[in-house]
Amino acid sequence: MQISELSDRSGLTVQTIKFYIRQGLLPAGSAVSATRSEYGPAHLERLRLISALREVGDLPVAAIREIVAAVDGGSGPHDLVGAAQRALGPDAAAPADPDWRAARRDVDALVRELGWRAAADAPARDLLAAAFVSLRRLGFPVTLAELRPYVRAAADVAEHEIARVDGAAPRTATVQSLVATVVYEQVLTALHRLAQEDAAARRFAP
Amino acid sequence: MQISELSDRSGLTVQTIKFYIRQGLLPAGSAVSATRSEYGPAHLERLRLISALREVGDLPVAAIREIVAAVDGGSGPHDLVGAAQRALGPDAAAPADPDWRAARRDVDALVRELGWRAAADAPARDLLAAAFVSLRRLGFPVTLAELRPYVRAAADVAEHEIARVDGAAPRTATVQSLVATVVYEQVLTALHRLAQEDAAARRFAP
Repeated sequence: MQISELSDRSGLTVQTIKFYIRQGLLPAGSAVSATRSEYGPAHLERLRLISALREVGDLPVAAIREIVAAVDGGSGPHDLVGAAQRALGPDAAAPADPDWRAARRDVDALVRELGWRAAADAPARDLLAAAFVSLRRLGFPVTLAELRPYVRAAADVAEHEIARVDGAAPRTATVQSLVATVVYEQVLTALHRLAQEDAAARRFAP
Repeated sequence: MQISELSDRSGLTVQTIKFYIRQGLLPAGSAVSATRSEYGPAHLERLRLISALREVGDLPVAAIREIVAAVDGGSGPHDLVGAAQRALGPDAAAPADPDWRAARRDVDALVRELGWRAAADAPARDLLAAAFVSLRRLGFPVTLAELRPYVRAAADVAEHEIARVDGAAPRTATVQSLVATVVYEQVLTALHRLAQEDAAARRFAP
């Protein structure tokens, strides 16, 4: 198909598509003349993935370039979950204060205690440490007992997500893993907020 | 205490504290002379809450001003959950395209089917609709059966959060509700990512 059809079918303007090609997110089409290139279904699929990561994950172009490079480099589902998570951040340097360092050690101890296999430098560890620091400053306890409902909810959902990844179809599997990481995270966040509102309404405004 | 002690105990610079006072996030101290004001424990508590919302929720000053106004206006836990959620966004206008409108209707139908009491204009509905649009574009089904694990995880966690809010201590209860909404959302997100990495490692890199 020509770029105009790719634009119609992806819902992205021709300028945006050309921008993605220049940025290395999308392979160029095959040139059929000096002024015309031909695009295939893989281009459309790639554009849908980029759009989802941009819109839902709110990921910058540089982060998407990393993810796309991992996909093109033949990374399996496992590596891709890691790549997507690094792209999701946080990517700021960890603060140097002692409260934060103590919280980060507690996170590592928690992950060990749960027996979870997660990279030692997974950004999610920093994210959790930052939440621990805030909870402690506000006087909330941070113990495994207190966190148990979150651990259980997270583990149940993750188990379901990874179980349904089709390991026999490598290309599909990688995309499924990415989507689970980015888009379903938003599903969980949105449902969590709605459920909180419902629980608060039932308890405080019966 | 003087502002220098408030600075030491909150870990915020004097400039930041003065900025929060100017922005209406923190009440001014009581003037004890032309150049000195006195601050109390309520100031320290408020600064800790502001810091948590800023650091963890990544909320802009305007959003925190709204939340703080709701706290000071005597809003109960139920209203505060709503106020915090509106502050968390999304606050962008909903896109006008038909896919999005269809997804938004599906979200409303889902919330009705679950029997959840959530405001008709809750931003979390828009957040969920955006995720639905992405999932559909990527060829993922969006059905109640498919979403069930997320619904269950969200409901379990929210139930736990609201159950532990101390309804007998109004001030504490409001802060607890806010923290549950903002900080524990980050706890859930971080644990979800770590659990995904673990599940992917067990399945694809045993």
